Amino acid sequence: MASVSVTSGKTLAQLFVDAATKAIEDSGVGRIDSIYVGNMLSGFLQNQEHLGALMATALQREGVPTYKIEGACASGAVAMNAGIKAVLSGLEDIVLVGGVEKMSGYSTSEVTEGLMMAEDRIRVASTGVTFVGLNAMIAREYMRKYDVRHEMIAEFPVLCHANALDNPYAQFHKKISVQDVLASPLVADPLRLYDCAGIGDGAAVIILAPLERVHEFTESSIEVLASIVATDSLSLYQREDITSFQASKTASRLAYERAHIKSEDVDVLEVHDAFSMLGIMALEDLGFAEKGSGVRMVVDGECARDGKLPTNTFGGLKARGHPVGATGLYQIAELVLQLSNRSGKCQVPNANIGLSQSVGGIGGTVALHVLKRCD
Amino acid sequence: MASVSVTSGKTLAQLFVDAATKAIEDSGVGRIDSIYVGNMLSGFLQNQEHLGALMATALQREGVPTYKIEGACASGAVAMNAGIKAVLSGLEDIVLVGGVEKMSGYSTSEVTEGLMMAEDRIRVASTGVTFVGLNAMIAREYMRKYDVRHEMIAEFPVLCHANALDNPYAQFHKKISVQDVLASPLVADPLRLYDCAGIGDGAAVIILAPLERVHEFTESSIEVLASIVATDSLSLYQREDITSFQASKTASRLAYERAHIKSEDVDVLEVHDAFSMLGIMALEDLGFAEKGSGVRMVVDGECARDGKLPTNTFGGLKARGHPVGATGLYQIAELVLQLSNRSGKCQVPNANIGLSQSVGGIGGTVALHVLKRCD
Repeated sequence: MASVSVTSGKTLAQLFVDAATKAIEDSGVGRIDSIYVGNMLSGFLQNQEHLGALMATALQREGVPTYKIEGACASGAVAMNAGIKAVLSGLEDIVLVGGVEKMSGYSTSEVTEGLMMAEDRIRVASTGVTFVGLNAMIAREYMRKYDVRHEMIAEFPVLCHANALDNPYAQFHKKISVQDVLASPLVADPLRLYDCAGIGDGAAVIILAPLERVHEFTESSIEVLASIVATDSLSLYQREDITSFQASKTASRLAYERAHIKSEDVDVLEVHDAFSMLGIMALEDLGFAEKGSGVRMVVDGECARDGKLPTNTFGGLKARGHPVGATGLYQIAELVLQLSNRSGKCQVPNANIGLSQSVGGIGGTVALHVLKRCD
Repeated sequence: MASVSVTSGKTLAQLFVDAATKAIEDSGVGRIDSIYVGNMLSGFLQNQEHLGALMATALQREGVPTYKIEGACASGAVAMNAGIKAVLSGLEDIVLVGGVEKMSGYSTSEVTEGLMMAEDRIRVASTGVTFVGLNAMIAREYMRKYDVRHEMIAEFPVLCHANALDNPYAQFHKKISVQDVLASPLVADPLRLYDCAGIGDGAAVIILAPLERVHEFTESSIEVLASIVATDSLSLYQREDITSFQASKTASRLAYERAHIKSEDVDVLEVHDAFSMLGIMALEDLGFAEKGSGVRMVVDGECARDGKLPTNTFGGLKARGHPVGATGLYQIAELVLQLSNRSGKCQVPNANIGLSQSVGGIGGTVALHVLKRCD
């Protein structure tokens, strides 16, 4: 991983190479059979595509097959899923999957317009509504439907900021309180600044190998029990219920089935809290809480690192940062650190099974990964 | 396939749905397990990403995993490769792979800038050089090194235009002569207008299934013997020899090996003639001619539909059209039609094995597919 930062001063390729070099060293692999690059915004912001060949060249690994995978803000996790299928296909053994995003150096309105590429340009983005605006609609409806107050939802970013204090890679190292969230500038009512993940640069890389070959490179490894991508209708206006993401529900059902686990077997969780409301909804959609009661888990301390279900243990999107195409792989890398007991001050005790949830667009794509410590 | 047209008047989603609907009907499949979308320019031109969920929604197939795959002008063929790995992984059986590009409605300079996203933005595109300019450098050096005259290279677009006359999906239905090519407006010396593929809208879709399940849906099917993606350094300035694409050579060696064939076993060929010079180079890089002698194959009529190695039988990029993210899949769809004897007036006799070559950027990515008629 590279640190998430507001302005890295690095190019896309430098961000990627920094993270990839660390991952290659850490994993002990030599030859790499293919490279998958998760990214959402490079065409729009950097006017740069062909990221596969760009990154292979930057890594001096020309020749290998490369792929840029895009699935909006879930691009990194979707790339992970594609990389896993490559390994399972038997055609590629050692697969490098990286996510990268450079969002610095652009105006907020440019980035805002870029992020709206995840929604339907013709029917939705063209109206001028922003992504925060769409998420504010969700939050407003959720609060009404389940009679939940903003100060309860605000516990989520408070948790994330507390966890990020111990994460050297985090974008924000700042303890905040519920009062700070409620007093922060209004962005799109009811969402305030501290309800929203920031804009940042970052890259995260995972090296995949068939289980039977892992011992060639490293003593500590993590098994992928399930990797699921599910979709829903692209736009919010097409949904019957906007207080829940059907793609999360579909994906979690399939993930638990494939991993042969139940939700209660999950020891550590990373959810896509691009907005505080989404963090709470994820707890419900993934089966950890009844609809409308996700906030209780946070308020009661269940999601804290010493709680029953440690969540966003490195700070989540809100405080670790959300360089969109990289985020899904930060989550997975953090789970790997947790499951292999290498999380430093962020470490949670006795974690055997981890789950990450990455959301693309307004729930149009959801990618889940279930990882397990190899004993 | 949808017809390639200068101005389709259709949205990205409409182009994709039109082609996908035909492919689904033609293949006889019901359920689809996943959708792979090859596209290069949508972020830049349409300010639209998240094409996976967009297309799943447009096709009313929400729920299934979706992927946007980008590999510059080879995006469609790279998506095909990713879809094939999905089938081989055992996780997905019926996979829809589509390529789509909408290039109409923009100025030539906008499209030119978009296409340069395939090159290194910082080191190359920023200098103002265009893609035609880079290809002109290749042509100039090739002509010097191998003492080949423009009128010989110009035979390639003449061949393509002749073939496209019989293809109802082709963008151009216009017979041209070598003299027409040489007299057409200069774009980047030595390349003239008729050396260059045009700008167009289009979409092409392939349905994949495991061989053992194909009989459930259709009597006629085509086997994929090899699907190879290879890369080279991203930029022309990084290469020792610019008259050859190393990625083509690497990919063809691997493709013949995996398919257990020799180049002489290929009965029908589709190459990436975005520029006339590239068509000639492909014949050499894929092993059909010695370096510098590819032109002879065309001049001698070997590449004609009644020749020894029918090439670009539906008109190639030059005359069928080159909607970039879709092109690799047009080529594969055309091979499928040839191998299943459904090519109408474009049909070549006795074709058992077909090869398609798709090039991303200035040879940074090359994707090859070897297909075989199932008897």
